[in-house]
Amino acid sequence: MKTDYRLADRVGKLGVETAFVVAGQAAAHAAAGNRVFPFHLGDLNLPTPPHIVEAACRALRDGKTGYTANVGIPQLREALAEEFRRTRGTSYTAENVAIQPGGKPVISKFLLTVMNPGDEVLYPNPGFPIYESQIQFHGGVAVPYGVVPGTTNFTFDIDGLEAAITERTKILIVNDLHNPTSAECSAEDRRRLAELAIRHDLLVLLDEAYFDIHYDGQSTSIVSEPGMEERSVILYTFSKRFAMTGWRLGAALGPKEIIQVIGKLNVNDESCSTHFVQWAALEALTGDQQPVREILQVLKQRRDRCVDLLNDIEGITCFRPDATFYLWPDITEAMGGKGFTAYQPFLATVLQETGVSMCARSHFGTPLPGENRFFLRLAYSGIDVAAIEEGLQRLKAFIER
Amino acid sequence: MKTDYRLADRVGKLGVETAFVVAGQAAAHAAAGNRVFPFHLGDLNLPTPPHIVEAACRALRDGKTGYTANVGIPQLREALAEEFRRTRGTSYTAENVAIQPGGKPVISKFLLTVMNPGDEVLYPNPGFPIYESQIQFHGGVAVPYGVVPGTTNFTFDIDGLEAAITERTKILIVNDLHNPTSAECSAEDRRRLAELAIRHDLLVLLDEAYFDIHYDGQSTSIVSEPGMEERSVILYTFSKRFAMTGWRLGAALGPKEIIQVIGKLNVNDESCSTHFVQWAALEALTGDQQPVREILQVLKQRRDRCVDLLNDIEGITCFRPDATFYLWPDITEAMGGKGFTAYQPFLATVLQETGVSMCARSHFGTPLPGENRFFLRLAYSGIDVAAIEEGLQRLKAFIER
Repeated sequence: MKTDYRLADRVGKLGVETAFVVAGQAAAHAAAGNRVFPFHLGDLNLPTPPHIVEAACRALRDGKTGYTANVGIPQLREALAEEFRRTRGTSYTAENVAIQPGGKPVISKFLLTVMNPGDEVLYPNPGFPIYESQIQFHGGVAVPYGVVPGTTNFTFDIDGLEAAITERTKILIVNDLHNPTSAECSAEDRRRLAELAIRHDLLVLLDEAYFDIHYDGQSTSIVSEPGMEERSVILYTFSKRFAMTGWRLGAALGPKEIIQVIGKLNVNDESCSTHFVQWAALEALTGDQQPVREILQVLKQRRDRCVDLLNDIEGITCFRPDATFYLWPDITEAMGGKGFTAYQPFLATVLQETGVSMCARSHFGTPLPGENRFFLRLAYSGIDVAAIEEGLQRLKAFIER
Repeated sequence: MKTDYRLADRVGKLGVETAFVVAGQAAAHAAAGNRVFPFHLGDLNLPTPPHIVEAACRALRDGKTGYTANVGIPQLREALAEEFRRTRGTSYTAENVAIQPGGKPVISKFLLTVMNPGDEVLYPNPGFPIYESQIQFHGGVAVPYGVVPGTTNFTFDIDGLEAAITERTKILIVNDLHNPTSAECSAEDRRRLAELAIRHDLLVLLDEAYFDIHYDGQSTSIVSEPGMEERSVILYTFSKRFAMTGWRLGAALGPKEIIQVIGKLNVNDESCSTHFVQWAALEALTGDQQPVREILQVLKQRRDRCVDLLNDIEGITCFRPDATFYLWPDITEAMGGKGFTAYQPFLATVLQETGVSMCARSHFGTPLPGENRFFLRLAYSGIDVAAIEEGLQRLKAFIER
């Protein structure tokens, strides 16, 4: 009986989203008959707007069930190019767009296209854990830069980022409107990041998954800085803005030379994205936008309840970020007051005692030297206001008990 | 202005399906106002059966629009495990199944999981071009084995395969019910391949994309040979059997140790496959099978018209294979009679003069030493009987003119 599979060496470098482990623990707690307050989910518990659902059904019944071109249907590519011309001022045409089965595939395909083994790649830490995993899995050197507390929100440590640049740095990953901290670049930050990218001739991955989850005012993309369009690839997703997470549709947008290779990777990896889903996405982009505004309204109400209730707990402080659906409260005093010095026993006890399920700093990369505060990540995308209130009141009672 | 993108070295090793080039030429010919007879398509021009379409619409309206587990919904994994227990006699449970956005992703994920740079991988040539592309892109050594004419069908050159095995051979790719030749293993072939895999401790990728496109009798999988379940990963797809090509759904099935890593790659690459599509696939597997039998009936009629008409052309001989929807006629005399010594001018002239669009040997890998016959690949999945008749009559008139 064969038992030794001699897995490839690179498998040892493969990470996952450890938040899935939290989801498993929450599910087990619920299966044992307990109520769970799901603050760990980056998914939305809001339905996809009905006009998008009906567009998919129409496309299905119209026989939009065969392959499409590897980079997607021309209509959707053109609509996305137009969206970016309007919102980012880029000069994209359809040729700058490769449709993907989600936003996430852009990370691995971009790295496979431009990163050689040994190349250094700057990425945010805390940050989306797939950056580090894919950099290392494909032989790159993952170089973290920090995301640190500012006065009214978290902020990217651009000084630290600059200090980490070497001769071997080739790629910079930026996730403005940041998961998990909700950090958002100022105009000065965008200018500085662009200046660094140009000075050091870096290629830039702009993960803009949360670009359209902005409550007051509009997002501004770093791609709009002079000299950045020609060196940036943008990760776009339909998931968050249109409550389409499980539809799996996104796109890579950038210079034609890179998009062409990403298109060849589409041919190699999955042929194309789901045909009728592309027509539904076209309806999402070009149809009625009122349901999208309503999704934002719901999320904003949730944010405000979450922030108010968190700040009402002794030993917890939380910013009120203007974008994404994540909060990153500092819980150093609250944890210390309860006698915890590590996240895992704290999270397990909170789940057991209150049903509140959350992620923590430890799920978003290895803490950097000098970090001495404790943070949680609460997502309010998958939990209603009533449950937010009950869950955070239970958390308050537990902390202050 | 940045113009030098310093693409990664591996990009130079990335291949594509050159059949897409043929599709582009056919589209251009059609756009110029000409009738095209599409024998180049591996897609189906048959609609997905309505009960599957309606299952997708129900799931959409039921709100099956959020993320699923990375390896898919449990119900579909269990249904596939049961399907394989029934048709292949494997002992799979849901844990042996990782749902994928198509069959194709299994190729790259399997190789990333078990192939180290420098490992030798045996693959069929002529064959599906993505094998060679992905082996080389991820640093492996692609070692071809032939698929050669037998008495009533093409057959795998197992002697040549055996002779190509070295100390560094780690992986064997088998595509029984073969694209493009329709070669099918005999019971003796399956026994020999299993014996070689076990003797040389090879891991085996069984691409069974056409397992269920079998006209008379049933397919038998090499995984059913003793000792093969524990060393094989199977590429399964919903695309061909259920006319669901554009839905993009498939699965990897195999030993838990490998499937677990492939599941981690799902987390890294695309999170999960489209949620409501998985429910439609469950209906496809477990619901009414009469539409599937009707699809096979239509394809069989097309096969018979194609084979009869091809053999009626001077200088062309064609087997009548029992599976897949491809034909691989020997056109050596017909091409020579028209004065052609290379595929490209021949195909271009045929398209120009008759509208018949086809692929050739050259689209399925570099010819091996000793090959001295010329072959075309005709797919009859995307063309009706009436168009088959008119197209092949035009081809006959051109060849015999």
